[in-house]
Amino acid sequence: MTEFRSITAETGAPYGDPFPVHGPQDVAAACAAAEDAFETYRATSREARAAFLERCGEEIIALGDALIENAMRESGLPRARLEGERGRTVGQLRMFADVVRKGWWQQLRIDPAMPERQPLPRPDLRLRMIPVGPVAVFGASNFPLAFSTAGGDTASALAAGCPVVVKGHPAHPATAALVAQAMSAAVKACGLPDGVFSQITGPSHELGAALVQDPRIAAVGFTGSRAGGLALLRLAQAREVPIPVYAEMSSINPVLLLPEALKARGGALGTAFVGSLTMGAGQFCTNPGLLLALEGDGLDAFVASATEGVKAAQPQTMLTAGIREAYLKGVEAFASHAEVETLATGAPGEGTCGGTSLFQTTAKAFLADPNLANEVFGASGLLVRCTSEDEMIALIRALEGQLTATLHMDTGDEPLAARLLPLLERKVGRILANGWPTGVEVSHAMVHGGPFPATSDGRTTSVGSLAIDRFLRPVSYQNLAQSVLPEPLRDNALGDGTPRIYDGAMLAGR
Amino acid sequence: MTEFRSITAETGAPYGDPFPVHGPQDVAAACAAAEDAFETYRATSREARAAFLERCGEEIIALGDALIENAMRESGLPRARLEGERGRTVGQLRMFADVVRKGWWQQLRIDPAMPERQPLPRPDLRLRMIPVGPVAVFGASNFPLAFSTAGGDTASALAAGCPVVVKGHPAHPATAALVAQAMSAAVKACGLPDGVFSQITGPSHELGAALVQDPRIAAVGFTGSRAGGLALLRLAQAREVPIPVYAEMSSINPVLLLPEALKARGGALGTAFVGSLTMGAGQFCTNPGLLLALEGDGLDAFVASATEGVKAAQPQTMLTAGIREAYLKGVEAFASHAEVETLATGAPGEGTCGGTSLFQTTAKAFLADPNLANEVFGASGLLVRCTSEDEMIALIRALEGQLTATLHMDTGDEPLAARLLPLLERKVGRILANGWPTGVEVSHAMVHGGPFPATSDGRTTSVGSLAIDRFLRPVSYQNLAQSVLPEPLRDNALGDGTPRIYDGAMLAGR
Repeated sequence: MTEFRSITAETGAPYGDPFPVHGPQDVAAACAAAEDAFETYRATSREARAAFLERCGEEIIALGDALIENAMRESGLPRARLEGERGRTVGQLRMFADVVRKGWWQQLRIDPAMPERQPLPRPDLRLRMIPVGPVAVFGASNFPLAFSTAGGDTASALAAGCPVVVKGHPAHPATAALVAQAMSAAVKACGLPDGVFSQITGPSHELGAALVQDPRIAAVGFTGSRAGGLALLRLAQAREVPIPVYAEMSSINPVLLLPEALKARGGALGTAFVGSLTMGAGQFCTNPGLLLALEGDGLDAFVASATEGVKAAQPQTMLTAGIREAYLKGVEAFASHAEVETLATGAPGEGTCGGTSLFQTTAKAFLADPNLANEVFGASGLLVRCTSEDEMIALIRALEGQLTATLHMDTGDEPLAARLLPLLERKVGRILANGWPTGVEVSHAMVHGGPFPATSDGRTTSVGSLAIDRFLRPVSYQNLAQSVLPEPLRDNALGDGTPRIYDGAMLAGR
Repeated sequence: MTEFRSITAETGAPYGDPFPVHGPQDVAAACAAAEDAFETYRATSREARAAFLERCGEEIIALGDALIENAMRESGLPRARLEGERGRTVGQLRMFADVVRKGWWQQLRIDPAMPERQPLPRPDLRLRMIPVGPVAVFGASNFPLAFSTAGGDTASALAAGCPVVVKGHPAHPATAALVAQAMSAAVKACGLPDGVFSQITGPSHELGAALVQDPRIAAVGFTGSRAGGLALLRLAQAREVPIPVYAEMSSINPVLLLPEALKARGGALGTAFVGSLTMGAGQFCTNPGLLLALEGDGLDAFVASATEGVKAAQPQTMLTAGIREAYLKGVEAFASHAEVETLATGAPGEGTCGGTSLFQTTAKAFLADPNLANEVFGASGLLVRCTSEDEMIALIRALEGQLTATLHMDTGDEPLAARLLPLLERKVGRILANGWPTGVEVSHAMVHGGPFPATSDGRTTSVGSLAIDRFLRPVSYQNLAQSVLPEPLRDNALGDGTPRIYDGAMLAGR
């Protein structure tokens, strides 16, 4: 096979012009170009790099409606959602431009020399973060813009000073090609070497494997399935020089319905839950797949309104035939489980559509069978009824790492919430109160990450400005002459508005 | 075997009371105690945690001369060195106390809510770093105090809020037992749970393997051989829940003698080099094992004085019989290599002593045989003569990751240094000018780390205050009520002097 084509998600039929199926030699060429571009790119000034990130956003906007139309056709997602996602994609490029200018990500540190110190003088020591090298990015099918070719991984790697080689997602090649074209236009417009950004395409796993194994690649960003993320992680660990893999893989995002909140608004919570569950056909990493509730007032009302909502839910086109198949299989496993009761199903998903399902089980059954904690990617929820706070706590302790946990709570629930919070902190990257986990803000205090297996590396986030840290490493300079030191560490850069840790104390910027 | 004993390094003979050989059940008990202590310990106030770290230092001082005497006997290192190392050990506990109080390591971030934002409101988001959980620490034989039971790994993990389980180094069990006794006294004096610190002892690798495999252990700190570090890394990666391993493994620490510096002071550099090479019998991670020089004025003077210095070097007791054996084998491999010339050897090391050796080869030979880049732990140096700047650059490109690189340079060397600096940044964690890599300052801008295989994780350092980051991970809190939020993130903590990133801008502390 030397070519492949876009698929119209709604019909499953191919459309448009073919795209090249790249091979190992294309991977090698892209990685060589990235390596060649690295020294030039990482030496750009903060202002030049920020302007480039902004230009990337402008070029994406300049693609106009063709981008939205192709993304709609390839993903089956509606126009409003994709227009919003484009805004988010451009917004995060702008946020990283702002971050690059502010400079705290460089983590500058200066320990001035103490020539008179006894018994030994202290040398002059200065530290900064430098980019790790070329980064491989694997986009996600469910966010054809914000987590794909020019998504958060790409934006944060470029912000750090790393050239990027994207493995374009085969579920949206037309969208990916358009965005890659915009990125390359921005590279050219800013006078940067071509290798700062490239994209390879093709439907095979071998292509991605070759990319991760290329010795010039220094780190990997990935969003997708657990099987896919773990496969790349193993390849990266087996290299002669192992490299970090930041894989965002799977999560069932427990939602805890605390007693006072349930009592006060069980019915309303049920309706709102179905809204979050069915958004985007449930195809979100942060989809609320697991509900934990204590038996008591309001739980019946919650179940009644959630059941009603699920029954009324309309089928929605899913991203790919493979995702739909996995969804149906996952739902079937719950429906046929001896300890699981089907509370409601929506209109059945025919053709390329998925449906909506809500199940319930007991805490005892959930604890007895780890399969009940499997992620079903799509609109499927499982309510676990707990008979005591201790049972709820045991259940939380038994959970795998997750991206999020949500507390629905009132003032009267605070003592219970205070018991749960330390447990939840050890299991998840983000804890929400009285909201829904879908809808991830791109900002500075966001964590879209979490302990294994939510991600392969729980020390980081893939959304928000902290994501830049993934692609940096520290270097210390001892007694280097001012003229040889990197510019941001020179004495004459003090007072340029960049935050620094000076002799152990944080000095803020402008 | 249920017991083992200290060995007098100088004679190889056992001495003193026996120490227990712990087994899997002891590992499990220590890890269970650490896990039990975790919630209490991580909830301590910054002040309480800082006071505990200071108390650890005081209890180590209170051990008095017995500590120094045992460390001397077990390591063969001289009194002045070990007194200095004790000062460093206590000093780094104090530095981390200061860091804990200052609070920037929490990386507090606040994105205030924007309820009026269009098209969607922004939630209130707050982020902090939390400790990862119980940490396993493997001490090094060559720093029985500063890199061992209460060394940098232990101090940084405790500062982060992680209980520590140390695998005491079998080369200095008496020293380790005394320090562990001091640590436990500090735990008790500060009213903390016993499990905040424990130590298991025994000579087998299985013990360490069991520790890394215990599901309650969340991260590993290690200083030692490449084989040892890689073995632990593989075990950690193969766990059901993989965990980070921070192993500081091997380095030959290239020293670059640039032409103008050589011309100006070739002879003096040779003398100073031998001083660094032979310090502590060469048993430093930062020992300068590799010299790179351009043919030209001053190189002969360097070789002459270095040769003279090596010939005059006296044998020194090595840490263990195993280390001495490996040293002799490593030296023999160089001495018998067809492309390597032996420039000088010091007085031969008999009994428990190692000697000193200096070799030279050509850049061509070095590039042709990767074995010439092997670390020889002990006083052994290899001078590589380069015929051109390009050859020196090719050689740097071919190097594995290293802890340090050193430039000896004058003003006239700056153009060459500017060419070399970007290459060196990609290979090492610390770049020094006109000094020697031995002697690692414990401060804020220090990096004692570097790309693989200098360490297993080039994103970090094991010395200096940045080391605390290894044992932290971010958690984000969305729309939590003030009364439920962790205290440092509450509104009423603003202005408490802790640095924060507020809406993207760094606000400094006091």
